[in-house]
Amino acid sequence: MLQQVNRQIILVERPIGIPGESCFKLVTSEMPKPMEGHLLLKTRFISVDPYMRGRMNDKKSYVPPFQLNEVLNGAVVGEVVESKSNNIIKGNYVIGNLGWQDYSVATEKEVRKINPENAPVSTALGVLGMPGLTAYFGLLDVAKPKLNETIVISGAAGAVGSIVGQIAKIHGCRVVGITGSDKKTKYLIDELGFDAAINYKTSNLVKALNEACPNGVDIYFDNVGGDISDAVLSLINNHARISLCGQISLYNGIQTPIGPRIEPLLLTHSAFMKGFLVHNYADRFEEGSIQLAHWLREKKLKYAETVTDGLENTPKAFIGLFNGDNIGKQIVKVA
Amino acid sequence: MLQQVNRQIILVERPIGIPGESCFKLVTSEMPKPMEGHLLLKTRFISVDPYMRGRMNDKKSYVPPFQLNEVLNGAVVGEVVESKSNNIIKGNYVIGNLGWQDYSVATEKEVRKINPENAPVSTALGVLGMPGLTAYFGLLDVAKPKLNETIVISGAAGAVGSIVGQIAKIHGCRVVGITGSDKKTKYLIDELGFDAAINYKTSNLVKALNEACPNGVDIYFDNVGGDISDAVLSLINNHARISLCGQISLYNGIQTPIGPRIEPLLLTHSAFMKGFLVHNYADRFEEGSIQLAHWLREKKLKYAETVTDGLENTPKAFIGLFNGDNIGKQIVKVA
Repeated sequence: MLQQVNRQIILVERPIGIPGESCFKLVTSEMPKPMEGHLLLKTRFISVDPYMRGRMNDKKSYVPPFQLNEVLNGAVVGEVVESKSNNIIKGNYVIGNLGWQDYSVATEKEVRKINPENAPVSTALGVLGMPGLTAYFGLLDVAKPKLNETIVISGAAGAVGSIVGQIAKIHGCRVVGITGSDKKTKYLIDELGFDAAINYKTSNLVKALNEACPNGVDIYFDNVGGDISDAVLSLINNHARISLCGQISLYNGIQTPIGPRIEPLLLTHSAFMKGFLVHNYADRFEEGSIQLAHWLREKKLKYAETVTDGLENTPKAFIGLFNGDNIGKQIVKVA
Repeated sequence: MLQQVNRQIILVERPIGIPGESCFKLVTSEMPKPMEGHLLLKTRFISVDPYMRGRMNDKKSYVPPFQLNEVLNGAVVGEVVESKSNNIIKGNYVIGNLGWQDYSVATEKEVRKINPENAPVSTALGVLGMPGLTAYFGLLDVAKPKLNETIVISGAAGAVGSIVGQIAKIHGCRVVGITGSDKKTKYLIDELGFDAAINYKTSNLVKALNEACPNGVDIYFDNVGGDISDAVLSLINNHARISLCGQISLYNGIQTPIGPRIEPLLLTHSAFMKGFLVHNYADRFEEGSIQLAHWLREKKLKYAETVTDGLENTPKAFIGLFNGDNIGKQIVKVA
């Protein structure tokens, strides 16, 4: 049975620093009705991602900012509950950029069908979705790992980092993860096969990295930035590659972050640093998706999900990303 | 007639901050004598280069540090005054890594013959030598300029920057130079054909760059670093390439230089920054040299030299690099 109202989460205040729950509000609106050519989708899983913090500022970037008093949006897995379209029918699962709400309306072109027989549908938000593709291209295309090289990954237990490490293992690298709890270091080593993992909150990071990287650092896959990157960069080898995926430690900063200038290090080591967005690789998503699914079937890739229950808890799940609450992909399960 | 003594410049004190002349001392030693298989070379031109500042610190880097109380060394053009070798004869000119002294002894393998009929022999230290090759590979291989892109060059009137700008013009770019005097901005525009040039000492740099780069910055060729780079990076376009060649503004710093963290800018613009050393391209020097000589003959490349007279003034010429005393290549003419 369909509800009579559609619950939605809107942004009522632009956060300054770490977002508070008061920036978000749960409102209700009328149930949307699909017009001809449209689908009515019941939200099953919502993805919350660190990059969304940038969209909460009123500043043009590579994606437009969220608008105040409008429904927040991002990657969502929905189930088709009514179809006025041809190729996607009732009962199908789809993924698309949809609202943080119980129900959405979309055209076929705005969503992509997912096959629940291949893997749980929530993996379309994680290992088989943007985070998996981000790991795939950010490691293989940007950093180009070679056998026996040492890679350090910050945010290593997150949705992207945990996949990067496993792909690097597949390519014969020594893999060292930096993360924020002993539970996570244990997970990285025992479950995912990392060679070493460091809890940056309880270690002398430079010392711990030195021990974990006896041959220096050839690749740094950076999800975090800030002080953690300063420590890693102090150990880079000649011709090191730094793949810049995220800078979560800086997203909530109020002022321009300041730190040691890195150009002298890059210069004297003939190193490079490259920022990338997964959407740069849109024309190769199929290649990446096929390979990730293949590794998943072969059990060369494992994934974890941290699942928060209830649409109303989406803001809390989002905010938790900045406390490192999640292992693997943080998703919200909606009824 | 040969002198009876060999004047030499040694490093007697490691500089802290900007080097003073007291760090250097002119001494005399016996005339060297070439053994079998060796050449006796009379120094004609000495190259002083910013990278040498790093070698004056007692710190391992990509080249070993200069040793205290030993003769300083670098690229030198010498004339063969005595040959006990087969393929290089008296009267030939050669280039090699030799001492800051009147006379040196070297084997054939340690030097390379230069042909004085192609171009003045001093160009082997500049446009046809390491600075020219640095410009060639740092622009074409690292930054890969495309037609109609905008390139900004810091240290634009220096030995490398002035060549980078001209090669970028050959490739159809809009070329904007940053330099430290009105004499130099005039030189860049009137003599070398730059589209715009900015005196950073008398401009609001961000404003001036905004005016000079109406379509943003696609390539930044950086010889300087520091505040100047902060201004340029604030204007980069998506997919910008930053070729890190030098950081002269930082070489004399006593503490680790601090500045705005650049990772967020690189990330949101899918930009990359790459440090390089010309020696990474050793196996392509012939290609670069042939092309540079070709452009020089075609008059597509011009070069300037700032010539200081006398071995005893080599330290002064070196120190002058950090005051921007030179236009084009700074060399010292000996005897």
